[in-house]
Amino acid sequence: MVTASAPGKVYLFGEHAVVYGEPAVPCAVERRATVRVEERADATLRVDAQDLEIEGFTVEYGAATDELGVEVPTELLEAATEYVDGAVEQARDACGAPDTGFDVTVESDIPLGAGLGSSAAVVVATIAATAAELGVELDPREVADRAYQVELDVQDGQASRADTFCSTMGGAVRVEGDDCRTLDAPDLPFVIGFDGGSGNTGELVAGVRELRERYEFAADTVTAIGDIVRRGEAVLTEEGPSLDELGRLMDFDHGLLEALGVSSRSLDEMVWTAREAGAYGAKLTGAGGGGCIVALDDSSATETALSYSQACEAVFRAELARDGVVVS
Amino acid sequence: MVTASAPGKVYLFGEHAVVYGEPAVPCAVERRATVRVEERADATLRVDAQDLEIEGFTVEYGAATDELGVEVPTELLEAATEYVDGAVEQARDACGAPDTGFDVTVESDIPLGAGLGSSAAVVVATIAATAAELGVELDPREVADRAYQVELDVQDGQASRADTFCSTMGGAVRVEGDDCRTLDAPDLPFVIGFDGGSGNTGELVAGVRELRERYEFAADTVTAIGDIVRRGEAVLTEEGPSLDELGRLMDFDHGLLEALGVSSRSLDEMVWTAREAGAYGAKLTGAGGGGCIVALDDSSATETALSYSQACEAVFRAELARDGVVVS
Repeated sequence: MVTASAPGKVYLFGEHAVVYGEPAVPCAVERRATVRVEERADATLRVDAQDLEIEGFTVEYGAATDELGVEVPTELLEAATEYVDGAVEQARDACGAPDTGFDVTVESDIPLGAGLGSSAAVVVATIAATAAELGVELDPREVADRAYQVELDVQDGQASRADTFCSTMGGAVRVEGDDCRTLDAPDLPFVIGFDGGSGNTGELVAGVRELRERYEFAADTVTAIGDIVRRGEAVLTEEGPSLDELGRLMDFDHGLLEALGVSSRSLDEMVWTAREAGAYGAKLTGAGGGGCIVALDDSSATETALSYSQACEAVFRAELARDGVVVS
Repeated sequence: MVTASAPGKVYLFGEHAVVYGEPAVPCAVERRATVRVEERADATLRVDAQDLEIEGFTVEYGAATDELGVEVPTELLEAATEYVDGAVEQARDACGAPDTGFDVTVESDIPLGAGLGSSAAVVVATIAATAAELGVELDPREVADRAYQVELDVQDGQASRADTFCSTMGGAVRVEGDDCRTLDAPDLPFVIGFDGGSGNTGELVAGVRELRERYEFAADTVTAIGDIVRRGEAVLTEEGPSLDELGRLMDFDHGLLEALGVSSRSLDEMVWTAREAGAYGAKLTGAGGGGCIVALDDSSATETALSYSQACEAVFRAELARDGVVVS
């Protein structure tokens, strides 16, 4: 039996624009998905998922048929099982063991569909754990690449390498198309506010695409986000980066995302709460439409203010996760 | 004795960017400043201002000295008297009557400093009324031009022709630098929400300038606002313009203004309230930082929703004001 874990992430800069070839800088945060994998004597894949911020579920199905053995109650749940299924397939493929069955147990303290890369973390940890259970230690770049393939499959061709690469490598990374690099960044005082909801990633991405195709100023706005990322990356990798400037860039990025139609009332309210509490800056993270914001604040003021905000269901500090995927 | 009135305005598109030579489309709305002017036997200028959404004030001072005869309680009040003083000076100059004294009574139902062009309306009405009291009917273009000079003087060289031209001509107008035109626009179902506050225009304009000088993406954001205005003007002057598209452009414009740092928590909250109530679109109007939003909604839903919003102190419908300055 092998256990692996992988971190979630926030976007310091660049979500949505990354879809159009602009760079993005996601940062891994200390909220992890943990996956335990044990080889079975038969070819069955049995998945037990707990604490996914949805009701725990257990699904049992044959590896060959791809058909679920039980009724799946929600779309979100269905997606979660698809991710695990895809990840196990990738590990089997990498290890040349197409017919091996597994018991897979997934635990996660990353809210689902909230912009923190929960699915990427589950996929990355599942691939690494399954391969390790088969006696193979995959190179991290291969884990990241195979995890990306899973997201691509499950999300109908709509995925960026940002989430899976960041979750695999840990720390701050820079992703531009297929070019993925780790960044030498200091720790950052992240505060994450969660409104308890989630946006519809597909619809949000489609909305941006429509605006971008219709209006040149929307395409220019996407490019401006890319310029913010380039400036932000330069600041982040300076000796003793300016949190003031990083915050100002986050604020600007948030406004451009709001212009592109992917913010929401509760996200904006949390962003204002953080700013008024004295955060260096604050923005939504991920696809938007609901879910999480990320703020920078080295005092406890933002955390306290968000804990009293009606829009905020949960708030937590999250250190930059130095470790990406860890197999034990 | 002569009475003149002039309307306030909302920016359908383009505030802030207009400072940098981009076009803007302000629209006059049916909230008016009314100024009564009566020639005096001496050279004294006596100003009595009522209902300026601040305490009524009466100020008496000699035309020659420019010194106020009484203590002025607030900066806003001081500014208000400066506008009236400057407007009377312009009328005296236009009519060749430098030493004539007047009793001037100002009434206004346009909130002060809230982005609705209250000062421009007062200045325009004062110039027209004072000139008429001196027996001169000024050409509207001259009224607009002289009113602009007053704003320029009082605001230390920071002014656009947008407010004063719009207030003078009424209807929808287009202003790009010194190029001012009236537009042939249909009536628009404006709903205005007021948070009871006001931003510091000087600081807000300076903040945008700093961002724009520092970051190319901020300069590009200002240009993108100009592109929204160009598109918006085209839609507005179509036969039967699409309120859907005008609203979408307003929403986008608001996001870019938010990126430039001129929105506020209460403005954003009112904007979301309007959008969730079904408005075609909503944005802040004017300098921002507090004050008013403008939404498009031909139903009563936005007005009702805003009346229940904590962030909103006052809400009203405002038809497009066909008449600009009117002397009676």
